[in-house]
Amino acid sequence: MIQVHRDSARLLPVEPSTRAIALDLYERVADAPIISPHGHVPPSLLLRDEPYIDPVALLVTGDHYVTRLLHAAGVDLADLVVEASAGRDARTVWRTLAAHWHRFAGTASGYWIEEELDGVFGITTPLGPDSADAIFDEIAAALSRPGFRPRALFERFAIEFLATTDDPLDELQAHAALAASTLKGRVAPTFRPDRYLDPDVIGFAGNVERLLSSTGRPGDFAGYLGALEERRAHFIRHGAVSADHGVEELFTLDLDLGEAERLFQAVIAGTADAAERRAFRGHMLVQMARMSVDDGLVMTIHPGVARNHSSATLDRFGPDTGHDIPVATEFTRGIRPLLEKYGLERDFHLVLFAVDETAYSRELAPLAGFYPSVYLGAPWWFLDAPDAIARHRSAVTETAGFYRGSGFIDDTRALLSIPARHDTARRVDAGFLAGLVADGRVRLDAAQRIMDDLVGAIPREVFKL
Amino acid sequence: MIQVHRDSARLLPVEPSTRAIALDLYERVADAPIISPHGHVPPSLLLRDEPYIDPVALLVTGDHYVTRLLHAAGVDLADLVVEASAGRDARTVWRTLAAHWHRFAGTASGYWIEEELDGVFGITTPLGPDSADAIFDEIAAALSRPGFRPRALFERFAIEFLATTDDPLDELQAHAALAASTLKGRVAPTFRPDRYLDPDVIGFAGNVERLLSSTGRPGDFAGYLGALEERRAHFIRHGAVSADHGVEELFTLDLDLGEAERLFQAVIAGTADAAERRAFRGHMLVQMARMSVDDGLVMTIHPGVARNHSSATLDRFGPDTGHDIPVATEFTRGIRPLLEKYGLERDFHLVLFAVDETAYSRELAPLAGFYPSVYLGAPWWFLDAPDAIARHRSAVTETAGFYRGSGFIDDTRALLSIPARHDTARRVDAGFLAGLVADGRVRLDAAQRIMDDLVGAIPREVFKL
Amino acid sequence: MIQVHRDSARLLPVEPSTRAIALDLYERVADAPIISPHGHVPPSLLLRDEPYIDPVALLVTGDHYVTRLLHAAGVDLADLVVEASAGRDARTVWRTLAAHWHRFAGTASGYWIEEELDGVFGITTPLGPDSADAIFDEIAAALSRPGFRPRALFERFAIEFLATTDDPLDELQAHAALAASTLKGRVAPTFRPDRYLDPDVIGFAGNVERLLSSTGRPGDFAGYLGALEERRAHFIRHGAVSADHGVEELFTLDLDLGEAERLFQAVIAGTADAAERRAFRGHMLVQMARMSVDDGLVMTIHPGVARNHSSATLDRFGPDTGHDIPVATEFTRGIRPLLEKYGLERDFHLVLFAVDETAYSRELAPLAGFYPSVYLGAPWWFLDAPDAIARHRSAVTETAGFYRGSGFIDDTRALLSIPARHDTARRVDAGFLAGLVADGRVRLDAAQRIMDDLVGAIPREVFKL
Repeated sequence: MIQVHRDSARLLPVEPSTRAIALDLYERVADAPIISPHGHVPPSLLLRDEPYIDPVALLVTGDHYVTRLLHAAGVDLADLVVEASAGRDARTVWRTLAAHWHRFAGTASGYWIEEELDGVFGITTPLGPDSADAIFDEIAAALSRPGFRPRALFERFAIEFLATTDDPLDELQAHAALAASTLKGRVAPTFRPDRYLDPDVIGFAGNVERLLSSTGRPGDFAGYLGALEERRAHFIRHGAVSADHGVEELFTLDLDLGEAERLFQAVIAGTADAAERRAFRGHMLVQMARMSVDDGLVMTIHPGVARNHSSATLDRFGPDTGHDIPVATEFTRGIRPLLEKYGLERDFHLVLFAVDETAYSRELAPLAGFYPSVYLGAPWWFLDAPDAIARHRSAVTETAGFYRGSGFIDDTRALLSIPARHDTARRVDAGFLAGLVADGRVRLDAAQRIMDDLVGAIPREVFKL
Repeated sequence: MIQVHRDSARLLPVEPSTRAIALDLYERVADAPIISPHGHVPPSLLLRDEPYIDPVALLVTGDHYVTRLLHAAGVDLADLVVEASAGRDARTVWRTLAAHWHRFAGTASGYWIEEELDGVFGITTPLGPDSADAIFDEIAAALSRPGFRPRALFERFAIEFLATTDDPLDELQAHAALAASTLKGRVAPTFRPDRYLDPDVIGFAGNVERLLSSTGRPGDFAGYLGALEERRAHFIRHGAVSADHGVEELFTLDLDLGEAERLFQAVIAGTADAAERRAFRGHMLVQMARMSVDDGLVMTIHPGVARNHSSATLDRFGPDTGHDIPVATEFTRGIRPLLEKYGLERDFHLVLFAVDETAYSRELAPLAGFYPSVYLGAPWWFLDAPDAIARHRSAVTETAGFYRGSGFIDDTRALLSIPARHDTARRVDAGFLAGLVADGRVRLDAAQRIMDDLVGAIPREVFKL
Repeated sequence: MIQVHRDSARLLPVEPSTRAIALDLYERVADAPIISPHGHVPPSLLLRDEPYIDPVALLVTGDHYVTRLLHAAGVDLADLVVEASAGRDARTVWRTLAAHWHRFAGTASGYWIEEELDGVFGITTPLGPDSADAIFDEIAAALSRPGFRPRALFERFAIEFLATTDDPLDELQAHAALAASTLKGRVAPTFRPDRYLDPDVIGFAGNVERLLSSTGRPGDFAGYLGALEERRAHFIRHGAVSADHGVEELFTLDLDLGEAERLFQAVIAGTADAAERRAFRGHMLVQMARMSVDDGLVMTIHPGVARNHSSATLDRFGPDTGHDIPVATEFTRGIRPLLEKYGLERDFHLVLFAVDETAYSRELAPLAGFYPSVYLGAPWWFLDAPDAIARHRSAVTETAGFYRGSGFIDDTRALLSIPARHDTARRVDAGFLAGLVADGRVRLDAAQRIMDDLVGAIPREVFKL
């Protein structure tokens, strides 16, 4: 992992005896290679290896954590898009970020960006209106150097494994080319079939039609399942280890073949009502679990987010622009039909993520503490920040221990933020473990083994690496 | 703010290096004037400026936080009412409080009362059966002095702005008189129209009838909206900055005019069913947002409390007697129709309060971190206590930062408790910020600016002061 | 309480000044007798007083907290059953536990077992593959000595009061014999009528039939209520102080006699639909409250757990094998009909437990802070662990203080774990109180009184001991 220059004990507990233990634990893993089994870095970024255009493209444009807070401060999202014709160059946008930088104090995004400025560029001057131009220039100058291209950064970050997220019909040529390249570290695709499984997605019937025609399958339920299986096999041949599923509600349902066939025809024809579409969606999660049992892909589920809350923003700027908002999420009853069928299967791995903290101690730790197939996903989305990670550990550890978690997952599009995010998790975990050592709950040698396993053995086991 | 005599570092973190930072931050704002943009102090209290009758009237009678805990301890609420004919003088009631005082240890009410005894009266002797009479006498003696009348206390507390809560048909003569008086500090009314908006309120049709007749409007939906707009204008002329809404469920709904007119006639006629009453209530929140967009009043919503849980207590003692109980509250979907319509409007300010902590990290911080109109209300009701305030900061800051909050709101009827409540929030915020400084997340100078803004710039911006 | 040998300050706050206060508070109650008003130790264990068979029978077999985590690690539950014919002796099972012991680090079960090994057997060697055999032998040797039989342990643990959980038709002969014995300390039965109240329990109609015939009552609703009342009286004669109720949903409903009679006949006949069964179940909770008002048994409710989540595991291994999973639980509305009827009754005691932490600050503390009948149950099941107990105190104390709680309840089948569990609660409470003293919220002498009351006066008052 990259060298960092700020206070070496940052994020660790302040009480001196606990901090000393935490430092010991953290330093064991500070430089351990990064395993990133779920994220959204585009493989083309690494394949093309072009220099980042400018500091805004690097740190602002695609990061909806950043643009959403600027938007909340009253900045029009359009004013964050570099557009020469509108007289808006990158420096102008960067000054907007700098003018609002005090609003990021205490946020995860603020912390990560400061980590990146320092860790990657050696910039420790606080960002603000006065320093905006100088920092812009310093980053821009660095970006023109070969050491700051994506592949150089990837290797400098010591990324051992990076999973991308990909459409089932993607031919994965970028992944094939990367595998054949000299890049140090493995880049694997992830099978993400939501738009082929959820009848409420716009364009669903057309998506299924493309899936069937590209695999030469007939238009019945068996053909549909066969097509999905075929694409999963294609992903596995290109190194995929997991299939990822995003749903607003965690609902699963087992159906007999006749009912599934009937629903399939109805959702394709667009005649299914809301209850039927829900049943189909719920059944397809069970089918995806069945396929995971058969082909070994780890199944991950990210439930509980209402997408595109602001229609006007969606219309102007598209999805993933900062207005996906979590909702209360139920797991115990929703996942039961799936677990009744496959929860005790050997080698079936199911990782459950949550953006609803209430499920941690109430449902997820109890589920992961019984079912050998269920792993508790690391804190996700709004919750992969220092305090939230600590709350997660506190909520789940007493029931499920450290060995039923997924290991940290960065879930990011921003290559640059990967080391900062993993470093954050390592520091918070070290601090949490140090607290257990300091108050006599865990012996130091046991904590040391756990610390090592959290960044190595655990994600390797969960994601079958 | 008043001088306090107890441990000057109370409520601050105990770890010495963090405490030193916290003290630095706290002392910056310890004496800053109080901005209280939402509360329930009656304006007549300040207008009449009569001495408080006795220690019980001052600290017990109207404070349902206090009476509810005594009731839980087995005390009949009737035994807390001073009533000469029943042989129950103020001293007797005071002794009842003193006999149960150990039950208040660790509670917010207990802390505030001890703050008031010390800060206002200089009484540091612990309250208890042995000290009850002496403390009663000391308070009673003070209350007879001019410096302990409401206006003197108001000025001693350095209250710069105090919002009351008022019925839309109130002519606001007390406010006019106060504005014309020599009182240092501004007292503003708040428009609170629940009983004219919610068909389930007892007397709803009569309330609307009075609203229409007092404004000379016709009995259709347009007349009803016009009457509300006219009363809001009256409030604005008297200095109001916000309109406040209390609902059990946060549900909003946009309707076309015809449907709204139909529902209006049905709820007035009493023929609307539960779904129609809910729809009307939900639509009126959208209408109130529309009016706020038009006239600039800040919109605040306090959802999630089931009022008058104990019918027998309501029958004997009326509402606001300690048995309003929170319920789980959903925001993401419930507020969406309102935000779809007005969430991106310039200068629309919507403050969302919660008594359900689960919404903090899951829904409120994500909403306030995207919509420029949405501000995250300070912890409210059962949650405006030291630990709860700290949990709130921890839950929301990593997503929304410090600048999407409303600033502290005391929401109290008890003038005497205002400085204690604001001081509590200042201390807890200083401690929270100090923790971020101590573990390297926020620079000291950035924390100092935030601390200043939390008690000044932020509430001024949110409430347009 | 037993002598413990590990770090005497374990579980206490690490910051030195807070720890000093916490130690002072803890030491006041470290040796106080144990009051255990709710648990599942079989009375026959104490009556027969036979030696424990082996370390596995003592620490693994019946403890589904332990077996569930081993199962999650991939161990077949069958492999944890000692079975000579399958070549699986106790030592083999013990080695399985030892091989997976690192998975218990940070869990409540791990902490308790280490407490037991040290506190009861003086074993401080860490459990692991290398030490498994030696520790097995050491425990086995101890178990053959008289001082390690159940009654000797019971007295060594200084258990003053132990409640068991019993079927309403139990004649309680074991309790009678224990009462007549020389055992130091009182063992009382608890009336647990779920299977006679819930139409969804398998065998419900037969259970009611047995209840009626054993009491010679007619098959109508009045006969059914009379039979329950008669059995409660039998329990009271044998020392019972409480009646305990487990429900998945907390739903209560008052019905007139005619409707109750109709539903009774329908649930017995098996013709009631889901809504009717729910109504009957909800009404029977109100009836049980009525009986508690009449006969004085404390009413306790344990809601919010979905039992037997894994059907395959239920079929192979029966209930209580580690796959009961909590669900979100609503209290405010669900308990209201019962409280409307009996919430203000003198001497009615209702203890509400929760496995859904979200209800602590939102519903339970507000309810217990108003209704004199409502006591807030101690953290339960997955939540009676150090961090979870601390979260509970933080969530409820500011609203309800310390005197509206039930006192600690161990809820355990494992006699050996009772002192470890109570000691954990005492330490965490001491640490929480010490924090309030250290930051100036509670005076030391007030904290000392509270600490004493938490382990003595409070459970004695709540459970009418």
